[in-house]
Amino acid sequence: MYEVDTGAACSWLSPPIDEPYGCFDRLNQMLDSIGERMVDVAMVGAGQTKFGNHPLGLKGMWAEAIEKAMLSVDHGFQSSDVEEAFIGSIAFGGSQLGNTAALLTEHSGMEGVSVRRVENACASSGFALRDAWMAIKSGQADIVVAGGIEKMNDLSTSRKRYWLGVSGDTEWERLAGLTFPGTYALTARRYFHEFDSTHDDLVHVSVKNHMHGFENEVAHLRKEVSFDKAKSGFMVADPLTLYDCCPTSDGASAVILVADHLAHKFTDTPVWVKGSGAGSDHLALHDRPSLTQLRATQSAASKAYRTAGVSASDIDLAEVHDCFTIAEVLATEDLGFAGRGLGGAFAREGEGRRNEGSVTINASGGLKSKGHPLGATGTGQAVEVFKQLRHQVEPGRQVRDAEIGLTHNVGGSGATCAVHVFGRQR
Amino acid sequence: MYEVDTGAACSWLSPPIDEPYGCFDRLNQMLDSIGERMVDVAMVGAGQTKFGNHPLGLKGMWAEAIEKAMLSVDHGFQSSDVEEAFIGSIAFGGSQLGNTAALLTEHSGMEGVSVRRVENACASSGFALRDAWMAIKSGQADIVVAGGIEKMNDLSTSRKRYWLGVSGDTEWERLAGLTFPGTYALTARRYFHEFDSTHDDLVHVSVKNHMHGFENEVAHLRKEVSFDKAKSGFMVADPLTLYDCCPTSDGASAVILVADHLAHKFTDTPVWVKGSGAGSDHLALHDRPSLTQLRATQSAASKAYRTAGVSASDIDLAEVHDCFTIAEVLATEDLGFAGRGLGGAFAREGEGRRNEGSVTINASGGLKSKGHPLGATGTGQAVEVFKQLRHQVEPGRQVRDAEIGLTHNVGGSGATCAVHVFGRQR
Repeated sequence: MYEVDTGAACSWLSPPIDEPYGCFDRLNQMLDSIGERMVDVAMVGAGQTKFGNHPLGLKGMWAEAIEKAMLSVDHGFQSSDVEEAFIGSIAFGGSQLGNTAALLTEHSGMEGVSVRRVENACASSGFALRDAWMAIKSGQADIVVAGGIEKMNDLSTSRKRYWLGVSGDTEWERLAGLTFPGTYALTARRYFHEFDSTHDDLVHVSVKNHMHGFENEVAHLRKEVSFDKAKSGFMVADPLTLYDCCPTSDGASAVILVADHLAHKFTDTPVWVKGSGAGSDHLALHDRPSLTQLRATQSAASKAYRTAGVSASDIDLAEVHDCFTIAEVLATEDLGFAGRGLGGAFAREGEGRRNEGSVTINASGGLKSKGHPLGATGTGQAVEVFKQLRHQVEPGRQVRDAEIGLTHNVGGSGATCAVHVFGRQR
Repeated sequence: MYEVDTGAACSWLSPPIDEPYGCFDRLNQMLDSIGERMVDVAMVGAGQTKFGNHPLGLKGMWAEAIEKAMLSVDHGFQSSDVEEAFIGSIAFGGSQLGNTAALLTEHSGMEGVSVRRVENACASSGFALRDAWMAIKSGQADIVVAGGIEKMNDLSTSRKRYWLGVSGDTEWERLAGLTFPGTYALTARRYFHEFDSTHDDLVHVSVKNHMHGFENEVAHLRKEVSFDKAKSGFMVADPLTLYDCCPTSDGASAVILVADHLAHKFTDTPVWVKGSGAGSDHLALHDRPSLTQLRATQSAASKAYRTAGVSASDIDLAEVHDCFTIAEVLATEDLGFAGRGLGGAFAREGEGRRNEGSVTINASGGLKSKGHPLGATGTGQAVEVFKQLRHQVEPGRQVRDAEIGLTHNVGGSGATCAVHVFGRQR
């Protein structure tokens, strides 16, 4: 954004700068920072548990995720080097609700680290990722962990419903009996009313995501489903059937971010967190001007594209928040992959299929197939993008020529959203 | 840290920088940023509800705190200008547990803002403040709100105990019946065993904080207590009596932070957030090497002093986390105001009394008298420092010649801690 005549720049500085990139480049970076960028942020490691019914509790799941993240760092990594950590969770599992972030870092070798929980319902670890990114850009930390965790399957059905329900509006929705399937069913009905779309379009989303997740070793529901089977699933909240709804999963995920000057210490192929954006909206549906657009997504995406210096058409793969199939349809529009009202057609025409359409949507299987452990979902999306951009996914799952990826993590029915853009190139 | 020969600096830049401070100063700031500081952060507004039994619910309490913060901005402030917000809370009050941060900003005119909850037990808003500070330093936001809130008095006694208890270790402490008074009682017993100190020293802390809080209009318990009365309070957890324990309060607090180049747009007397530090420790007491030191406080203080470029002896007033009187004694040592084992004597000799000792400790009355609405406490401490450094407290409460203040916010029994240093001078 700003350019420096580097002719005599170094003679300025006292004491001299001793940086891997050298004085001139560092000055250029600094001047860039006046605009958007200060320090660039590299993802050098990423790992997660299998999502699903996990046999371990909080400590064990977190340890597994962070260990996998550390093992993925090509040139080695020590957990004691972490300076800041941000852990997303709604309720951890309900047993240890306060100070749990510190409990988890303590039990994964990051003793003494500056750590906190970040909570924004199902967008918790998307915001943990944003805050970790800002921590590095702030110059206060060079090595930062962002992660997320949720233990859902220790809970009774009524407690699960409670912990899920408290992320919608309590006063106007939850206490009136509106659960999340109901919320998204209202959205779907309105979408079909406003645009040329039917439930069949949602079935296409479900079939695609099950197909994508089938070979993903960390996915919760690894089974392909036919169009007819998905279309005739039992009704959960009309028009949404079982195959429109993501499962309730346990899981933990973590990514390791470092400042630009350290990236090549850890790996020859970092994934750059090029941009980040976040936004919010009214919590209760009735306060929003439209049921079929998520303004939080729109503003988050706009900021993320701007900070990354890319546009929607540059994205090769996007992990989007398909807690219900209709949410993926809206996301393809709000993120700019499809025009307004054309998300249904986008799904129908297979535009999001791996290596077939214009952009691969939910190569991991998405929340629908990979699973949805609430607070672990956001950084779980980043794990998939990390692997895809480094060409390290299972055979058959690779998105061809994947250069730029995006993650889209939504809290509740759209009250909060965080979007990130990642690239193989800085 | 770095200096620039500004002789021909501006000719470098294309396009030119249009900043209030002008090109040369901005370049100097940028070069400073290579070390610790990127952008300096100014607090230009701060407000809170009265702590205690508040008649309003979450939305009303938050609106009151943010409105008071906005009204304290000398040259006016619009909530719609806020770009990022960080709200600390353990449980909000238990009714709306997910996405509540967005609900609160929505109801206080910050529509669409990038907002999240930050949770670290009773240190929640201390960490919200740190993350807000880093957000500005990251260059991603120029106007940021940090706040905290907790609604405790809507809860039954058993639920209060639950929400308080879940911030200690569930597995080894809470489920074994150890509550927070018990935790700190163990600490006090050990302290008396190791050092030349008795319960009388704690009584001095209680008497001082009640005296300091007596004229604080936002304090929960506004009554002076005599030494004899505080000494003979009924036993809560031996050796801690009622007068050693802070009350359970409702409350909300918020501060408005801006990037350096905007500070004088909002006020002629900003309070600079000069330094920030945070740390963590084992959650369960038995894992810590010492019961009478909080390593999280020590590392947080060390970082805060370093980033601020000051030492303990520079501090004029400190708001420390005296959830129990023994906690203030430990804090005076861990923050460097008293030598190891000398915190008891420090209290006994009145070293923390307003305008009498070496540093005023808890000019507000502290958690003991001002009150402790868990998540609201950290930024509530910052509100007091803001008022003290601007000489805007009630008559009789002013700390003389207050130039540098400190806040110290602890989560649980010391698993997490955030320390901040503030100054009238940048």
